[in-house]
Amino acid sequence: MRLTVDKEQFLKAISAAGHAIASKTPNPIMSNLKLELNERGVEITGSNADMTIRATVPYRLGEREIIRSPGYGATLINAHLLTEVVRRMEGTEISLDVIDESIAKIDDGRSSFKLNCAKADEYPDIDLEPTGVALDLPCADFITLVEQSAFAASTKEQRPVLTALNLEAGNGSLVATATDSARLAQKTLAIDSEERFRCNIPAKIASDVIRLFGPDERLTLSVSENRILFVFGNTVVASRLVSGDYPVTKAIIPQTFNYYLEVNAQELLSAMSRVSLISAEKEFVVKLTMQSDDVEISAKSESAGSASEHLHIFSYTGERLSVSFNSLFVIDAVRALKSEDVILQFQAEMKPFVAKNPKDPTSIELITPMRTY
Amino acid sequence: MRLTVDKEQFLKAISAAGHAIASKTPNPIMSNLKLELNERGVEITGSNADMTIRATVPYRLGEREIIRSPGYGATLINAHLLTEVVRRMEGTEISLDVIDESIAKIDDGRSSFKLNCAKADEYPDIDLEPTGVALDLPCADFITLVEQSAFAASTKEQRPVLTALNLEAGNGSLVATATDSARLAQKTLAIDSEERFRCNIPAKIASDVIRLFGPDERLTLSVSENRILFVFGNTVVASRLVSGDYPVTKAIIPQTFNYYLEVNAQELLSAMSRVSLISAEKEFVVKLTMQSDDVEISAKSESAGSASEHLHIFSYTGERLSVSFNSLFVIDAVRALKSEDVILQFQAEMKPFVAKNPKDPTSIELITPMRTY
Repeated sequence: MRLTVDKEQFLKAISAAGHAIASKTPNPIMSNLKLELNERGVEITGSNADMTIRATVPYRLGEREIIRSPGYGATLINAHLLTEVVRRMEGTEISLDVIDESIAKIDDGRSSFKLNCAKADEYPDIDLEPTGVALDLPCADFITLVEQSAFAASTKEQRPVLTALNLEAGNGSLVATATDSARLAQKTLAIDSEERFRCNIPAKIASDVIRLFGPDERLTLSVSENRILFVFGNTVVASRLVSGDYPVTKAIIPQTFNYYLEVNAQELLSAMSRVSLISAEKEFVVKLTMQSDDVEISAKSESAGSASEHLHIFSYTGERLSVSFNSLFVIDAVRALKSEDVILQFQAEMKPFVAKNPKDPTSIELITPMRTY
Repeated sequence: MRLTVDKEQFLKAISAAGHAIASKTPNPIMSNLKLELNERGVEITGSNADMTIRATVPYRLGEREIIRSPGYGATLINAHLLTEVVRRMEGTEISLDVIDESIAKIDDGRSSFKLNCAKADEYPDIDLEPTGVALDLPCADFITLVEQSAFAASTKEQRPVLTALNLEAGNGSLVATATDSARLAQKTLAIDSEERFRCNIPAKIASDVIRLFGPDERLTLSVSENRILFVFGNTVVASRLVSGDYPVTKAIIPQTFNYYLEVNAQELLSAMSRVSLISAEKEFVVKLTMQSDDVEISAKSESAGSASEHLHIFSYTGERLSVSFNSLFVIDAVRALKSEDVILQFQAEMKPFVAKNPKDPTSIELITPMRTY
């Protein structure tokens, strides 16, 4: 294997594929990137037990030649070392030449590295061909979908299915749901497709994948029984799916409410993050006490003391109501909505309540209150 | 105790004093800041086993009133909680009122906190009155002194005296020396004083203290047998001294050399940090091979491979010479010199060598070579 390649494009691809390399792996071969030069360009693959990322550096990008002097072949090079070496090289082009299948000569005309490498056939065969149902959408839409839902997934492994982001496509919409059972976040996206599927993507992988998207790219999802493929730009990401039935969430989300509080999102966030300093040792519990002419946010703790403040800008409809909750859940939810104002809708003191963007009904953030003093 | 205080000045003072609070302390009372309002202003003290910081917020700064409505007194408040609460408050003024010696009411007109506090007399008496020899110099000079020396101190506790920065004043100069026995850094400062003293300051504390200095401030050092005081702006820092005789370093620093390499500092740093990627597992050893028409930096490792590059801009005087060393030591030394070019001076392959700024003889960085392949 032999090529001369644009440094910036090469670094981008090895960095992307490197995201899939686990820092500790029982199988040392998996700490390598696989580099394969073929008719499509140089395909760079990194993989761990949960996901595989393959980024391809093409021969040309528009008018620009990216790869010169190609000699087909494949090799395995330590991901961390290769990435650091290429990152610190100063030339704009890098030549890579694999000698005797055991040494990769990397040269930018200034620095010359000979990195030990391994034979490509020691790497597992990873099939990244699209299979199953396919759905095409703008990357930007999928970013919104994940950002407004995935944060609510569980980080604990007791119920593995709750560590997933549930995707459900059908009837022209794609719905993403995450819940750790104390809160739930759901985002609905209108899609130009009648495809139907359901799958549970590890929420952490969903959040990682969206960081690899380039601007204005389109995304194709390919969903089969055990895995999902994300195809975008010159990159393919394969993720395992979480098995198990995702809880039916429709019945959980209340539809009618008795109390409505509309507030400036930033004012609510600032007040809650201040007041909850007091209850940091008690799951950041704060109490929201609402009546038509006053909204108070307060917290108490035996060790720290107490805090209270009143919102300046709000509109409240309903009888006087006090609700206590983990303020981090409400902070996450309000941040995810990314709106200027938010509306909080309640049924009763101890019933789950909803945070929404008043101008966008497609995001629902549900939070279960807590019992307090 | 009662006062209304400018938020920004108060936050600056509690943040400064908070630097002395250890994250874990066997004595819970020491996780508090002591606040004492007296005729000088509000004195805020934080302390751990090694150092004490007292920052004073004065009644006035020039024309500006900083403290209003004072009622003398003292209290102890949890440092972390107080700092976070004040940091997040939005008002420009904060009122603090201690009730029954057990609750500190903190209010900015918007948020209202009642923080549990403790009686001031539970705090140890810490004497911060200057004693011993005094030396006055610009803070900026002391920053240079520490930055060009303290990094070479040992971080291991086997020989406690090597964890210190040695200061020696006399004959119109102040010399700072640090060594971990594999390298040494020494900076000499001309001072306008005939005072004489020697002391060993914990190097970490020296590096921490200089971050508290304000622009254009002057520093007074007060050195007595067991402690040093740093007095600057409205702040006093007391540090314990490390006991034990500091090694005599004069004999270690070579005075005559046989080989001289002058290079661009940035080119040397880039090349060494690249090449040493190969030997990360072997103490980042690199080999510098110099002759009149070529300077090569190279590294080898059984597991990773090898690397080599040649410097473009250099001037070398002497026979051909190869020297191997821990590149991190040379990188630290060259960075500390902060000069455009550096000169490396050698006696022989296995003798300690010196890195210097060719335009400034007051900094000496000494590095012991390593034996390699």
